[in-house]
Amino acid sequence: MHIRKNSARLRDQERARLIWLLTTDKAVTSTLLGKLTLAEQYDVGTLADDIAEVGALVAHLPPPDLADTLEALPSEERHALWRLVQDHERGQVLLEASENVWDDLIDEMSDQAILDALQTLDIDDRIYLVQHLPRNLTGRLLASLPAGERARVRQVMNYEKNSVGAIMEFGVVTIRSDVTLAAVQRYLRRLGNMPQNTDKLFVTSRDKTLLGELTLQTILMNGGQIRVSEVMDADPMTFSPEDDAEKAARTFERDNLISAPVVDAAGKLMGRITIDEIVDVVYEETGNDMRAMGGLSAEEDVYAPVRRAVKSRWAWLAINLCTAFIASRVIDGFEQTISQLVALASLMPIVAGIGGNTGNQTITMIVRALALQQIQPGNFTFLILREMGVALINGLVWGGIMGGITWWLYDDMALGGVMTLAMVLNLLVAAIMGVIIPMVMTRLGRDPAVGSSVMITAITDTGGFFIFLGLATIFLL
Amino acid sequence: MHIRKNSARLRDQERARLIWLLTTDKAVTSTLLGKLTLAEQYDVGTLADDIAEVGALVAHLPPPDLADTLEALPSEERHALWRLVQDHERGQVLLEASENVWDDLIDEMSDQAILDALQTLDIDDRIYLVQHLPRNLTGRLLASLPAGERARVRQVMNYEKNSVGAIMEFGVVTIRSDVTLAAVQRYLRRLGNMPQNTDKLFVTSRDKTLLGELTLQTILMNGGQIRVSEVMDADPMTFSPEDDAEKAARTFERDNLISAPVVDAAGKLMGRITIDEIVDVVYEETGNDMRAMGGLSAEEDVYAPVRRAVKSRWAWLAINLCTAFIASRVIDGFEQTISQLVALASLMPIVAGIGGNTGNQTITMIVRALALQQIQPGNFTFLILREMGVALINGLVWGGIMGGITWWLYDDMALGGVMTLAMVLNLLVAAIMGVIIPMVMTRLGRDPAVGSSVMITAITDTGGFFIFLGLATIFLL
Repeated sequence: MHIRKNSARLRDQERARLIWLLTTDKAVTSTLLGKLTLAEQYDVGTLADDIAEVGALVAHLPPPDLADTLEALPSEERHALWRLVQDHERGQVLLEASENVWDDLIDEMSDQAILDALQTLDIDDRIYLVQHLPRNLTGRLLASLPAGERARVRQVMNYEKNSVGAIMEFGVVTIRSDVTLAAVQRYLRRLGNMPQNTDKLFVTSRDKTLLGELTLQTILMNGGQIRVSEVMDADPMTFSPEDDAEKAARTFERDNLISAPVVDAAGKLMGRITIDEIVDVVYEETGNDMRAMGGLSAEEDVYAPVRRAVKSRWAWLAINLCTAFIASRVIDGFEQTISQLVALASLMPIVAGIGGNTGNQTITMIVRALALQQIQPGNFTFLILREMGVALINGLVWGGIMGGITWWLYDDMALGGVMTLAMVLNLLVAAIMGVIIPMVMTRLGRDPAVGSSVMITAITDTGGFFIFLGLATIFLL
Repeated sequence: MHIRKNSARLRDQERARLIWLLTTDKAVTSTLLGKLTLAEQYDVGTLADDIAEVGALVAHLPPPDLADTLEALPSEERHALWRLVQDHERGQVLLEASENVWDDLIDEMSDQAILDALQTLDIDDRIYLVQHLPRNLTGRLLASLPAGERARVRQVMNYEKNSVGAIMEFGVVTIRSDVTLAAVQRYLRRLGNMPQNTDKLFVTSRDKTLLGELTLQTILMNGGQIRVSEVMDADPMTFSPEDDAEKAARTFERDNLISAPVVDAAGKLMGRITIDEIVDVVYEETGNDMRAMGGLSAEEDVYAPVRRAVKSRWAWLAINLCTAFIASRVIDGFEQTISQLVALASLMPIVAGIGGNTGNQTITMIVRALALQQIQPGNFTFLILREMGVALINGLVWGGIMGGITWWLYDDMALGGVMTLAMVLNLLVAAIMGVIIPMVMTRLGRDPAVGSSVMITAITDTGGFFIFLGLATIFLL
């Protein structure tokens, strides 16, 4: 098949090939890191070819692809590749890479080397990186800036991490409303270049109040004699710097926006947010939710070193252990019951397990719907009733089947009945708590995703053991 | 605080208010659905005001907001709101809504009413909707199209659901390479309007071969006498219709694209993909991953009726029950052991639980990294070793603590030792399987997210019980 020089597929192949070269032959990485003597290098037959190919691939791949490749490499290979990235591309590569890559690479760079890498970036990108880099270079970056920029940088650094202000860009093109489109076009030609993702210009008054926006399309499709005020959109969608970035992402998706103005409380234009920051927010938001539910820290990636992985997980493991210990004490309380009917010990995990499964399904759905703003307070009763209905039906059907099997296995009808009843009750508990936990956490202003899976499992385990062994004690002894 | 007429915050408030009006007072919905007599309506004091406010909000909110509101409503309220949506907006609202909303609303519309709603949409959107609507209207839609369009529609319908071809748009603006920018601008003015998200034009030869692309910015910033061929990007990023949509989304994110050309094997321009379809893909992809891991069907939303929710979950519940049953049989095999030492029954869920927790953390991380293409075959050994390292440390620390507590609780050092050893071993099993399961599923061409959480829990439960009770049988009896 004919593949264009720059097709997405070809770039994918090149990245995969680069990773393959660096990870399959230890000698390549060792040579790049200067750990192999010339004699040792000579022993590896294809080494020179491989090194040459790595060099060619690095030279050909653009910064975003190099950033992705760095993310897909273990630490040692990552450093080897980083050495090959050219100085003038380093800033751009860092910008596109994730926090884990920064943590890993920044260690071996001097402050000056980092600031040099930043020099190639525009001011918005520099601010973004300095804010997020593991080392605090704010002071030195500020010192390197022209005085006029410093105030702006200080301002943006004050916004909260997940706010529109934190992802806002200052690079906007503004025009006056009373000029003609021909004048706008002359102005743009003089300007020479526009910030990335500029699909529209912002129309402001002399005191920076936002009056409207004008898309590039509108400029191109109308005659040069027409005035901006005649064709601009005078009521554009705007954001405040305090707005939540995830909500802004939903608005971008809803309205198919490419960029949108950010205005202050007085309606003055402060900057803009663009779709590429928004896409990052979406990827992060959903990824974080997934990790958070299982109690996985957002900082951990697949190539974080063992030390960091242990640290990021130990808190949730400890909590999990505590809840498992409580469940264990519940069982211990029924020691008498179990010693009289050992079959209970083998049946009780079924009751607990099915509850955990149902609870997790419910909670996943609710967390997701909360993130997408599909749940409003008025719907609470409906949701609880619906989940209880689902749980009741599933409980009766599967509890009934399991009760039948138990009856048949142990030739004990009462035991089968207890099994069915326990499963129905535990499924109801799972359904109710699966709705309540995330809703209450939201009401308390907490992220409903964090650890919700661990919590629901704790409840359905403890609850399942208690319900099943309790019923057995009442009905079977 | 001053809020602009069209700020994101104001729109959020209006949607929330609309949902509140429809869900808190049953009378509003009933009236809209024509279920209340005039006398009954009169009894509700504020009803007339509420109905008027609902009407005003519906008239003011644009289609994407109405679509989001529909998604946030239970079925009855959804139908009530749908009746208020004006005919000429219905197509646009449907387009922005999710599958669940379609399923729900389409039922009460006649085929003709649906086709009428579609008439207001452009051809790309009509194809998209007809492909995904629950009712098969393909034949009638095709019949309503001009003959020239039919072949194209048939073609796009043949691409797989998650391919670039399925989200491709035909609406592109093409130009020749030998004309001047002034001529291009004259052409655009004659054209009158451009498809949404047009940030660039595609330069093609007479036989439709893609030669390059020209951004609107470039047109605006260069003199009218310059020819297209001098300023176009002759090596743009291209996609094939067979490319995976999720991979395309990663490329869009990586390269900050707004739109990109889709070419066939011969390099001829077929259409384009745009960022708004891509954002939808990202939201869907990550949401689906989350749901799939817990064995939740992609079709279920929080407002699906009980019947559908039961149906979409029953398969995974059945699988979960089977695995729980197997774990139960493992325990049953050790009945002798448990009857001699009942303490084992209360300790065994701790071993199983901690394994499930660790396994789920590992698998969540791997599934996510696979989706982001951060894992390549060459890294497999590294990942296994790293996860085993983490598991070993966690196992020794937490297993040690738990073993100590067990020793102290039951005054039995051997039991404490078995506890520690079992926890270390089960954590190792969890770590290894947490890496292997998603990797093997990917190798087999399956989605690694689907049911992976259910699978790992099954293994750590069964494994945990077997390891713990097995060790106890060997060392304690």
